Amino acid sequence: MEKYQAAVVGATGFTGVELVSILATHPNFELASAFSRQDSGAQLSDLYPALVERDADITLSPMSDLDGADFDVVFLAVPHTCAMGLVPSLLGSGAKVVDLSADFRLKDIPAFEHWYGVEHTVAELVDRSIYALPELVAHEMIAGAQLISCPGCYPTATALAAAPLLRSTLAKDDAVVIIDAKSGVSGAGRKASLATQFCPVDESVSAYKVAAHQHTPEIEQTLSGVADRPVALTFTPHLIPMKRGILSTVYIACEKDTDVRDVFQLYQDAYTDEPFVQVLALGAQPKTSSVTGTNNAQIGVAFDKRTNIAIITCAIDNLGKGASSQAIQVANIAFGLDQEVGLTAFRSIV
Amino acid sequence: MEKYQAAVVGATGFTGVELVSILATHPNFELASAFSRQDSGAQLSDLYPALVERDADITLSPMSDLDGADFDVVFLAVPHTCAMGLVPSLLGSGAKVVDLSADFRLKDIPAFEHWYGVEHTVAELVDRSIYALPELVAHEMIAGAQLISCPGCYPTATALAAAPLLRSTLAKDDAVVIIDAKSGVSGAGRKASLATQFCPVDESVSAYKVAAHQHTPEIEQTLSGVADRPVALTFTPHLIPMKRGILSTVYIACEKDTDVRDVFQLYQDAYTDEPFVQVLALGAQPKTSSVTGTNNAQIGVAFDKRTNIAIITCAIDNLGKGASSQAIQVANIAFGLDQEVGLTAFRSIV
Amino acid sequence: MEKYQAAVVGATGFTGVELVSILATHPNFELASAFSRQDSGAQLSDLYPALVERDADITLSPMSDLDGADFDVVFLAVPHTCAMGLVPSLLGSGAKVVDLSADFRLKDIPAFEHWYGVEHTVAELVDRSIYALPELVAHEMIAGAQLISCPGCYPTATALAAAPLLRSTLAKDDAVVIIDAKSGVSGAGRKASLATQFCPVDESVSAYKVAAHQHTPEIEQTLSGVADRPVALTFTPHLIPMKRGILSTVYIACEKDTDVRDVFQLYQDAYTDEPFVQVLALGAQPKTSSVTGTNNAQIGVAFDKRTNIAIITCAIDNLGKGASSQAIQVANIAFGLDQEVGLTAFRSIV
Amino acid sequence: MEKYQAAVVGATGFTGVELVSILATHPNFELASAFSRQDSGAQLSDLYPALVERDADITLSPMSDLDGADFDVVFLAVPHTCAMGLVPSLLGSGAKVVDLSADFRLKDIPAFEHWYGVEHTVAELVDRSIYALPELVAHEMIAGAQLISCPGCYPTATALAAAPLLRSTLAKDDAVVIIDAKSGVSGAGRKASLATQFCPVDESVSAYKVAAHQHTPEIEQTLSGVADRPVALTFTPHLIPMKRGILSTVYIACEKDTDVRDVFQLYQDAYTDEPFVQVLALGAQPKTSSVTGTNNAQIGVAFDKRTNIAIITCAIDNLGKGASSQAIQVANIAFGLDQEVGLTAFRSIV
Repeated sequence: MEKYQAAVVGATGFTGVELVSILATHPNFELASAFSRQDSGAQLSDLYPALVERDADITLSPMSDLDGADFDVVFLAVPHTCAMGLVPSLLGSGAKVVDLSADFRLKDIPAFEHWYGVEHTVAELVDRSIYALPELVAHEMIAGAQLISCPGCYPTATALAAAPLLRSTLAKDDAVVIIDAKSGVSGAGRKASLATQFCPVDESVSAYKVAAHQHTPEIEQTLSGVADRPVALTFTPHLIPMKRGILSTVYIACEKDTDVRDVFQLYQDAYTDEPFVQVLALGAQPKTSSVTGTNNAQIGVAFDKRTNIAIITCAIDNLGKGASSQAIQVANIAFGLDQEVGLTAFRSIV
Repeated sequence: MEKYQAAVVGATGFTGVELVSILATHPNFELASAFSRQDSGAQLSDLYPALVERDADITLSPMSDLDGADFDVVFLAVPHTCAMGLVPSLLGSGAKVVDLSADFRLKDIPAFEHWYGVEHTVAELVDRSIYALPELVAHEMIAGAQLISCPGCYPTATALAAAPLLRSTLAKDDAVVIIDAKSGVSGAGRKASLATQFCPVDESVSAYKVAAHQHTPEIEQTLSGVADRPVALTFTPHLIPMKRGILSTVYIACEKDTDVRDVFQLYQDAYTDEPFVQVLALGAQPKTSSVTGTNNAQIGVAFDKRTNIAIITCAIDNLGKGASSQAIQVANIAFGLDQEVGLTAFRSIV
Repeated sequence: MEKYQAAVVGATGFTGVELVSILATHPNFELASAFSRQDSGAQLSDLYPALVERDADITLSPMSDLDGADFDVVFLAVPHTCAMGLVPSLLGSGAKVVDLSADFRLKDIPAFEHWYGVEHTVAELVDRSIYALPELVAHEMIAGAQLISCPGCYPTATALAAAPLLRSTLAKDDAVVIIDAKSGVSGAGRKASLATQFCPVDESVSAYKVAAHQHTPEIEQTLSGVADRPVALTFTPHLIPMKRGILSTVYIACEKDTDVRDVFQLYQDAYTDEPFVQVLALGAQPKTSSVTGTNNAQIGVAFDKRTNIAIITCAIDNLGKGASSQAIQVANIAFGLDQEVGLTAFRSIV
Repeated sequence: MEKYQAAVVGATGFTGVELVSILATHPNFELASAFSRQDSGAQLSDLYPALVERDADITLSPMSDLDGADFDVVFLAVPHTCAMGLVPSLLGSGAKVVDLSADFRLKDIPAFEHWYGVEHTVAELVDRSIYALPELVAHEMIAGAQLISCPGCYPTATALAAAPLLRSTLAKDDAVVIIDAKSGVSGAGRKASLATQFCPVDESVSAYKVAAHQHTPEIEQTLSGVADRPVALTFTPHLIPMKRGILSTVYIACEKDTDVRDVFQLYQDAYTDEPFVQVLALGAQPKTSSVTGTNNAQIGVAFDKRTNIAIITCAIDNLGKGASSQAIQVANIAFGLDQEVGLTAFRSIV
């Protein structure tokens, strides 16, 4: 069996440690190194005691040791705006780069610079990257790319929910898509902050970054692509007192007299061959806990015939299909493996 | 100081016990009796040990002992469709009735019968009842009524969020209002069910009764009233892993070139004299935990200038402003008291 | 690769569905059938939507179809006192029986009948069963048995914590062992009850069945066995607002001038070859979340030199090492497989 | 009605804001000023939006403005080792000082310096302070003191649980008291740290500072005082995934043939006149949620006749009876008010 050498950069963050954990039991990727800016020299289990004496434990290497030539694939689980500094030399070394950050997601460089508040230092590389949402992008394109940009968590859940309808004639041409999304706290990453302390988060729900979240242009880019028209949308994320999970509730105005069964059929057809997407029976609604620790997305279809609005819900694990396990799915495709390899059962850490 | 004799019917449910607890420290109402269909003879503290040896503890009386003549006011905290059987004789006895159930909320009897799936046995009394959302209804009308119907939890949060904008010229005339609401688990009441067990609820979020929740016509009735036109809406409730709290996120399409400061001004003006409603500064978003155990509503105003959609959020405690403390507020008004009496600080039990 | 046909009886309970999920990806066991008393005919995914379209989904068979001759191994995940009715005919059919209930754990039949409040109808079979805590029992004995009784969750965590010290000369001979255990809510199983509803459990901790829990004699039996003397103990379980996990904090009085490093060495030596037990470094304390969804046990060693009391903590997943994954570990041993097969990574459902 | 001017120093911490909230509705204390080292000039509602437009909101004053002469009573809700720097000048100004920190709790200065790791700069003042656990200390002594030291949260719950038995002849003279305590996360205070982030805390339980918690000598001092002998104890705190609440489970070896009813009687007698302590009926166990947001303590009495060990549990709100509301109870006593004034119902903020 072919074995590819893999590295995880930024291994101590939530998406990083999840990557490490999945790679530890993956039959085709071998976790060769894990890099950390702040904690090099430490064991990963010092930060995540779940890994004590387990295969996923590893000594963290300093960033200065990172050389793409040592690996077949390098996963970047670094903060936004950090990946762009690492990518050029990694590409030069010949390794494939799977970037979980936002740095190469947006084709519109000014939009990137507006929403993320920084200059893009390697804008010329953006066109060489593939935005790899595997259920919406041709797998050959992923397989042919050296620089692969993984979708964000909110965009993944939202695009899976909206794409079949926006591609169809059932949606109104000028519908403004309303996206009301709910995320667990791990979406904020692993850092000490007052806002994500247990006490202020527990037993509460609130919206945040209303009409101002940096995932907005990414969702717009993806939905406009599938709809083949500029899609206007309003995106409101909410913080939910749970560790993991995203539920995206998407409202799309449809043509008059749309039949809910036709909407449902669209979704069944769209995802019938997708092993990681389950469209629930009409009347059922997905729960985020049903997909925790998996690469699955579960979708619920409903339709308000009094207003002709479709309400599509999609539940994913923000650290799974929304980040780390989707990155492995993408890497599987990139290396010509079955996309499900290593993802049937894996262990989540956060 | 004037003292009124009060009874709580259905004292063992979540809204019932909260009523009992507030009444126990209310200076003008005296909790004379608490009635229970199933637990008469027991102490309320047998079910809620928080009340052991406290003033709010009380021996539960059987329903057969209920006689409106014994009380100045009777609070009905009974399940929907039970109140209509109790109200006629209570009204006959001369007591004021404050009904927390849905039985007298809807003026449209066929709509009631459709959404609640039962015949309304005393439809002729509905017109005699006042739907008492105190921030939207004239207090004299509440004071003059003998039968007072308290709003539901979702309708309270949603109406407070939507009313100022729908009453204004900023909202588009034909805007379909999208309501994406999030509720804690106590909204399902106190009963043993698989769906509200700890394990399936914890660490998960999901939508339920999508486009099919029985509060929909109540919200339509209220919003149509304030807008003075038939308001179409889509309402999607979600279950959140927390005990108490509702956040209603309301999307309303506005006229082109609406200025967020004008929207904000509408809300400040609407609620400037309302002691229980706080409009947060632009940029701030309400958290449900900020209003837990209170009769407060906190409102956040935002506007997506890219789509001309206002996003108004309102946080309440579903058992407070959404039920029991609002019922006390209403009773205060009904008896000519200051509406804040007994509600500055009280103890929540659930 | 050898394949054994496996059945799960009681597949809809929490331990049942976890067994199903692990078996679905186990290389040597094939989940041939899943039986349910109440839900036969349904899909398991109707009750656990996490399983929709996944390999672990299965149509539930009626109990009347259960025939041991169809299987190499039958896992009994039925309520206590139900297993004893099923075991005789299963043994007669030649299948191995792995019983997760309490029915065959206690060698002392009167003690069983006292603590569980029922007559033991097949007491003569108890001596034929092996109590299979794999870290404390010789694997050959497990391999040679046809009827295997799996330990309870509290006894597993407690025995792993207490055994090395009780076997040693460091513990005082007459020490009363104090066991203060904390469990997540799934320990109460999947049933609608007021006590395990979200609202009464969330944001609270309490003791229950103090000095009266039915696991007491099982713990006594195990600790007395390892200590080779009758061990007196006091056991206090507590309910914690989390889904899964047990932490057992065990207090054992030691001989004067005991050195904490000697205690620590005992534990390192005891578990150095055990793949599922990790003894944390001195000063570290196990968290239940570190073992959630695994078959691991993590142990913390501390010593209060002011009182000569050792405080040993052990964290397990009550549905993992405390029930279902341990049952698979035991079955692995029983069939001569590596005990880790299928347990490196699996998916937890509850 | 007499009014006393009160100040809260350290108003932005969890205990500080709770003090502010209680004082805001207290009939005899007037919240004149709230001081903050880091946030002076801000509104308290900037940090705690629950206070927006409420009476408890207040502009935070700089520490440099603190002058005891302006107040009748100054509550110190500052970190340990900060109070000792403030107390001398406050005492000089004539104000009563109610100190919620640990600085004046321990009469044994070397013990303080050992456990807290700092030198005590005003050791001579310790003898002038009263350790004010109102159920165990004569109220006249509290009333006569100018410097009042409030007990810690763990010591309060533990002392209320242990005192009646340790004072009696039922407890064995040389019994080592085992204290296994469980606390919500707010016990760690309001500060950004990795350890109290939502993700590592949620869905987990663990012990911490085993046999090394700084409350140990305080508990020893109190229990030795009530027992009138040096009491040896082992204290193990645990972190529970909930915001508020402490449950202390205390194990005390008793004389042979002790009758549980005699133990129970001890507790009933001890607390029969105490308005804030409720001894639950035999067989019942206290839940922390029953006392959340109150100054109550609920006690459960159990006895293991197989080992002659009494298991006494005590539930308090760590920020209520364990800190802020107990400080108000103490201040009530100190100013000759009924100890229940202002504590029947108040609003909790954290």
